[in-house]
Amino acid sequence: MIVDCAHYSDGRRQHEGPMRPEEAAAICGREPGFVWLGMVDPSPDELFSMQATFGLHELAVEDAQGFHLRPKVEQYDEDIAFVVLRTARYLADREEVEFGEISIFLGASFLITVRQGAASDLHTARLRIEERPQLLREGPQAGLWAILDKVVDDYAPVVEELERDIEEIEQVVFSGAAAPVHRIYLLRREVSDFYRAVHPLLAPVGALARGGLLDVSPPVAQYFRDVADHLNLVNEEVVAQRDLLTTILQANMAVIGVEQSDIVRRISGWAAIITVPTFIASFYGMNFEHMPELRWEGAYPLVIALMVLTALGLHRSLKRAGWL
Amino acid sequence: MIVDCAHYSDGRRQHEGPMRPEEAAAICGREPGFVWLGMVDPSPDELFSMQATFGLHELAVEDAQGFHLRPKVEQYDEDIAFVVLRTARYLADREEVEFGEISIFLGASFLITVRQGAASDLHTARLRIEERPQLLREGPQAGLWAILDKVVDDYAPVVEELERDIEEIEQVVFSGAAAPVHRIYLLRREVSDFYRAVHPLLAPVGALARGGLLDVSPPVAQYFRDVADHLNLVNEEVVAQRDLLTTILQANMAVIGVEQSDIVRRISGWAAIITVPTFIASFYGMNFEHMPELRWEGAYPLVIALMVLTALGLHRSLKRAGWL
Amino acid sequence: MIVDCAHYSDGRRQHEGPMRPEEAAAICGREPGFVWLGMVDPSPDELFSMQATFGLHELAVEDAQGFHLRPKVEQYDEDIAFVVLRTARYLADREEVEFGEISIFLGASFLITVRQGAASDLHTARLRIEERPQLLREGPQAGLWAILDKVVDDYAPVVEELERDIEEIEQVVFSGAAAPVHRIYLLRREVSDFYRAVHPLLAPVGALARGGLLDVSPPVAQYFRDVADHLNLVNEEVVAQRDLLTTILQANMAVIGVEQSDIVRRISGWAAIITVPTFIASFYGMNFEHMPELRWEGAYPLVIALMVLTALGLHRSLKRAGWL
Amino acid sequence: MIVDCAHYSDGRRQHEGPMRPEEAAAICGREPGFVWLGMVDPSPDELFSMQATFGLHELAVEDAQGFHLRPKVEQYDEDIAFVVLRTARYLADREEVEFGEISIFLGASFLITVRQGAASDLHTARLRIEERPQLLREGPQAGLWAILDKVVDDYAPVVEELERDIEEIEQVVFSGAAAPVHRIYLLRREVSDFYRAVHPLLAPVGALARGGLLDVSPPVAQYFRDVADHLNLVNEEVVAQRDLLTTILQANMAVIGVEQSDIVRRISGWAAIITVPTFIASFYGMNFEHMPELRWEGAYPLVIALMVLTALGLHRSLKRAGWL
Amino acid sequence: MIVDCAHYSDGRRQHEGPMRPEEAAAICGREPGFVWLGMVDPSPDELFSMQATFGLHELAVEDAQGFHLRPKVEQYDEDIAFVVLRTARYLADREEVEFGEISIFLGASFLITVRQGAASDLHTARLRIEERPQLLREGPQAGLWAILDKVVDDYAPVVEELERDIEEIEQVVFSGAAAPVHRIYLLRREVSDFYRAVHPLLAPVGALARGGLLDVSPPVAQYFRDVADHLNLVNEEVVAQRDLLTTILQANMAVIGVEQSDIVRRISGWAAIITVPTFIASFYGMNFEHMPELRWEGAYPLVIALMVLTALGLHRSLKRAGWL
Repeated sequence: MIVDCAHYSDGRRQHEGPMRPEEAAAICGREPGFVWLGMVDPSPDELFSMQATFGLHELAVEDAQGFHLRPKVEQYDEDIAFVVLRTARYLADREEVEFGEISIFLGASFLITVRQGAASDLHTARLRIEERPQLLREGPQAGLWAILDKVVDDYAPVVEELERDIEEIEQVVFSGAAAPVHRIYLLRREVSDFYRAVHPLLAPVGALARGGLLDVSPPVAQYFRDVADHLNLVNEEVVAQRDLLTTILQANMAVIGVEQSDIVRRISGWAAIITVPTFIASFYGMNFEHMPELRWEGAYPLVIALMVLTALGLHRSLKRAGWL
Repeated sequence: MIVDCAHYSDGRRQHEGPMRPEEAAAICGREPGFVWLGMVDPSPDELFSMQATFGLHELAVEDAQGFHLRPKVEQYDEDIAFVVLRTARYLADREEVEFGEISIFLGASFLITVRQGAASDLHTARLRIEERPQLLREGPQAGLWAILDKVVDDYAPVVEELERDIEEIEQVVFSGAAAPVHRIYLLRREVSDFYRAVHPLLAPVGALARGGLLDVSPPVAQYFRDVADHLNLVNEEVVAQRDLLTTILQANMAVIGVEQSDIVRRISGWAAIITVPTFIASFYGMNFEHMPELRWEGAYPLVIALMVLTALGLHRSLKRAGWL
Repeated sequence: MIVDCAHYSDGRRQHEGPMRPEEAAAICGREPGFVWLGMVDPSPDELFSMQATFGLHELAVEDAQGFHLRPKVEQYDEDIAFVVLRTARYLADREEVEFGEISIFLGASFLITVRQGAASDLHTARLRIEERPQLLREGPQAGLWAILDKVVDDYAPVVEELERDIEEIEQVVFSGAAAPVHRIYLLRREVSDFYRAVHPLLAPVGALARGGLLDVSPPVAQYFRDVADHLNLVNEEVVAQRDLLTTILQANMAVIGVEQSDIVRRISGWAAIITVPTFIASFYGMNFEHMPELRWEGAYPLVIALMVLTALGLHRSLKRAGWL
Repeated sequence: MIVDCAHYSDGRRQHEGPMRPEEAAAICGREPGFVWLGMVDPSPDELFSMQATFGLHELAVEDAQGFHLRPKVEQYDEDIAFVVLRTARYLADREEVEFGEISIFLGASFLITVRQGAASDLHTARLRIEERPQLLREGPQAGLWAILDKVVDDYAPVVEELERDIEEIEQVVFSGAAAPVHRIYLLRREVSDFYRAVHPLLAPVGALARGGLLDVSPPVAQYFRDVADHLNLVNEEVVAQRDLLTTILQANMAVIGVEQSDIVRRISGWAAIITVPTFIASFYGMNFEHMPELRWEGAYPLVIALMVLTALGLHRSLKRAGWL
Repeated sequence: MIVDCAHYSDGRRQHEGPMRPEEAAAICGREPGFVWLGMVDPSPDELFSMQATFGLHELAVEDAQGFHLRPKVEQYDEDIAFVVLRTARYLADREEVEFGEISIFLGASFLITVRQGAASDLHTARLRIEERPQLLREGPQAGLWAILDKVVDDYAPVVEELERDIEEIEQVVFSGAAAPVHRIYLLRREVSDFYRAVHPLLAPVGALARGGLLDVSPPVAQYFRDVADHLNLVNEEVVAQRDLLTTILQANMAVIGVEQSDIVRRISGWAAIITVPTFIASFYGMNFEHMPELRWEGAYPLVIALMVLTALGLHRSLKRAGWL
């Protein structure tokens, strides 16, 4: 489905409503400025018609059709670049990161964006670039910047939510409650997936920022550098989170070990307290004829006292030794 | 055994059935286009005859004969390149990845492929390239692309099957069932072997994609870039799986630790419940003459009640403390 | 808030009290030397007025406003560089590292510093540079050096305090006291955060030292090399601390394991000592009519002696075997 | 001891028996071809005489004298290269890898080899090169290739034997037998030592293969590439083995943990089965006068039945719960 | 304190006793050769006087004064290089590595060395260079080589002693004695510290060896390459030791786990052997009136036999199952 199609020239959008793609194709290259055509979950037919209209590369169109799972920036020799971005959204109820994809065809005079799955809304990216006329004048690369900026900005809340989950897990682990191994594991898996969405983008965005890819002009390059910088921050945070979750898993095992020692100690303590009086009771259950105590009148209360005292004494000394 | 031998020229196969190798050798270099000769598990004699006919390098032929175990792309100075690919197939019944090998001799006007073991069927690779006449015109490198594309495409189901196994293991580990240490270990070993089949290929395929190897022409280079891209994805997935399996092993140990604590706690709880009444029984088994209770008529039912009550009381408080 | 604003020329500060920013802007570029304007937690309005006055880049000003969390050195094409530094301070009472930020705009004839949070006091940096007239003559880069030097010098006590904490933890772990898993974990987290404040600075400061960034003149580059060298040392120490804390976590688990074995052994030993006499008591509690011992006069003391002797014997042999 | 000394020229050995070193030195540089002088465990005097005769560098001769422990390829400015190789041999009876060393002085017209310890027999290397006259014509570098090829070929059986040991250990670990921690550790140590013998050689042999070291001519470079390729394979296998052994150590710990849980469960099960009848016995050992059961005639067999039934019931339900 | 000061020219020391620094400074640059001035733990005043006399850089002198903790080689633009080396010595009684520092100022015609702490004795370095007149002619860089060579040679015994400690620990760990977690940890810490003294030196010494630093002349570069080679060996050994100690820590934990399982099994076995006879005793302690066995004459010895037999039978079957 085509959601918006507009002609940008002279630093501003040339018309209000969406243009038809044929018109857009006709304008391309003949009039100054560029065309930005946005599609959401397009049918194969829609994509093939775009391929024919704008002269896109067969392999790029194939990639744009399904989920590619790996972000990339590729320069095709016919002056068309193909960019794949992985978008991310945190689903609080399922403690999961949901990924979507944006594929971008970037020509000298057009920008075709293909959103798939839970992708970032690109309308805000359009607004972002429309607010900066001088940047808009630089051509479709300015649009690419706006999309990248939006996608990377949308990573930030995901990082924060993951951070919050990690903090929750920390509290559970160190409060001594039931150890949430499963939750730690699943979160680590989410963080790894997120890392794989973010990390392969670092090199190409860095190249865009240095002007070493797509012949980005210096003023636009600076905007890409800003994105590269945010991406670096996200990447470092994700790497740190992954490391943290590995450490939590280890710390959790140590906590379990400590707890186990504690349980064994506590149990053994109470066992000792009950075992000694039991022995005394067994002792006076012996059937020897010549056990003078058995006949003494005060023996029974004395033995009870002995039991109580040994139990109390043991309790006290074990408490002191930290076993109870 | 020679399975197919064809002359490709002008973007299409020049004849229907297979050609004899001597004919193929005669055509090579004299007529335009190139010859693709496919062998499966060839005898040493067959290989040596190819070596003589096509002027292949002694060392490359040696490598093609046995299993080389390591993918590579090598340029020999006489304009002949030698490529080794590791093919992979998942055997569901044995939860194993079976590897095969394809060795490729790539000359200016010929392409000799040697399949060994459970290798990908190259017939589909031929069809793939025959469908793209404009690519076929670029010469034998187009054939190399088709083979690489087929081999790397065949990695995808292996990755998926390994993923499915990992998910099964996750379920077992976190359901608290018997911990499948052996299965985790074996799967990790399979993933490591697969990684070694995939990873060394990254650099040379990347070089092919950048045009830095074999003087690949730009239009073909783009196709190689597509393969490089898929290979990168496979590689990242395999790396992630390896990391995941290491984490599962650790998580499994944590789960075992938690379970052990649980068992110890549960056992100790029940032991406590039975120990106290046992003590009471021992107590009234003492043989003192002056134990007035022994003579009281209601003492016996009272003691039974005491036993039941202490047992119930302990059961309740241990249940509350989460020990039972 | 503007805390200080001064004109430096000819190797010394040109006036005593702070200058107004408008005056400073008027001097810039027209008179020799440079202006150093220092702000602390500035309001957005203050920053925007600086942006207008000194022609700062929109994106840099945005970064300077909030916490950026990642140190960096960036060259903008209009001869203005933008530097972000993370300052660190150790809070002994909370065993935490508190971070602040210093953003620096470095023009050909001005230096604008923006301190945020618990940042290093830049007054000492000013004094440091004012003491070196020949360096001050080199322009605002000398000021950048003074700030970097101060910030990196302030890392040293943090490293030392973290070292002290690690030594405390080592003593606790190996004294066999309660294992401080939580403390180890939190400290490792602090060290990781600190690492992230220090590590991304290495590359740009190294580039400054080699003269490969901002066209630093050789005499100033040597001063940057000194900073780079200290930063390298801090970085290596932090990396070593992180590794150490991971090892401590593992060592702690081993210590817990050893302790647990010890407890189990000790408990079992005492259980054995009480179990054997209990068996003997049970034995003579049997009600057989024909147990001749029960009638022997010396049997009772003999049995007591037997109990005492087996208990002592067991105690002795277990002590020898290292179980008690 | 000098074991062989021959003059190679025109693609073949010029004489049958060994030559005297003085003759060899006299031929060097004056006649075409080159001299290959082989020594085994030479005395210092023998080495110093070679140093004088062939103008070897003092430091290289020092290195050749003792065990150097690190493979390397070094170019000395007087057109003499010095190569150190670590040879490896697997000792099945001691499950150890035995290392030896070969030092090689490579001049424009001579090749001096010094074997020390359990080094590969270089006679086969001579035969290998003598079989390839066209390679032999390329000069002493061909000899270097033959030696490298022989040494690297001899790594293969070591890798295989280590692999066999690892498989044995896997079987032991997962059969649940006594966990061979010591054996795993020692094997890992052997693998690490082997890695250190192989890994530093990768870079210089790679450089030889690319023609970037010793000005190797393209035809010989291809032979070095073949060696580099095998060396890469050995290196990857050793790295994989090291990783595997670390994983086995972890898996072993998990297996021990599982086993321990199992033992605790089994023991507790049997303890429960015996504890309940013991309680019943104690119960009827109480001395109350008013325990009507004690007088019932059928009470005794009933109680026995009760004991048997509770024991059987417990046994059954614990068996079902997987505790026995 | 100045320990020696000599003028080297024409390949030999020009005088016997030490020269005064003023004389040395006067000779510098005017007469051929160079001056080597050696100081041990100099006072700040001594250092500042050197700074003035020889025109040393302020920052280098600052570094030379205290402990710098990180080895480095720095080129200052006034043709003076500044080198910091970390010396190491093994203290067998405390199982510690003691570090010292040597700071070196290297000018075109002078060499100033500053020893601090437990540094290597540089007298042997002087003798080493005095024995090689042709090297001495190359100027102060020859002196630098001699010092580096001495310092790196002194690393070897430290590596050996650490190796010996590791072997001792291995024996303790695998003999099943008390697990020396603390000792492993401390040794790993020492090895890490040593690594930090050695590793940062690799890159600059490598650069010296390649002639890429300080414009080292080829004949001297070869001597530096020899040092670089030894340093590489030391570094690889230290890295291997660090890895080994991490593995030992893990192996130790596995050994502890195995031991614990063993203890639990052994204890449970003995508990079973005593529990069954105890149950039998309790059984015949019941007070039923109608227990015919109690009246049989042979019952008592029969029961004793039963107890002994069950105990022996259990002992035997547990022994067979490997539990005792």
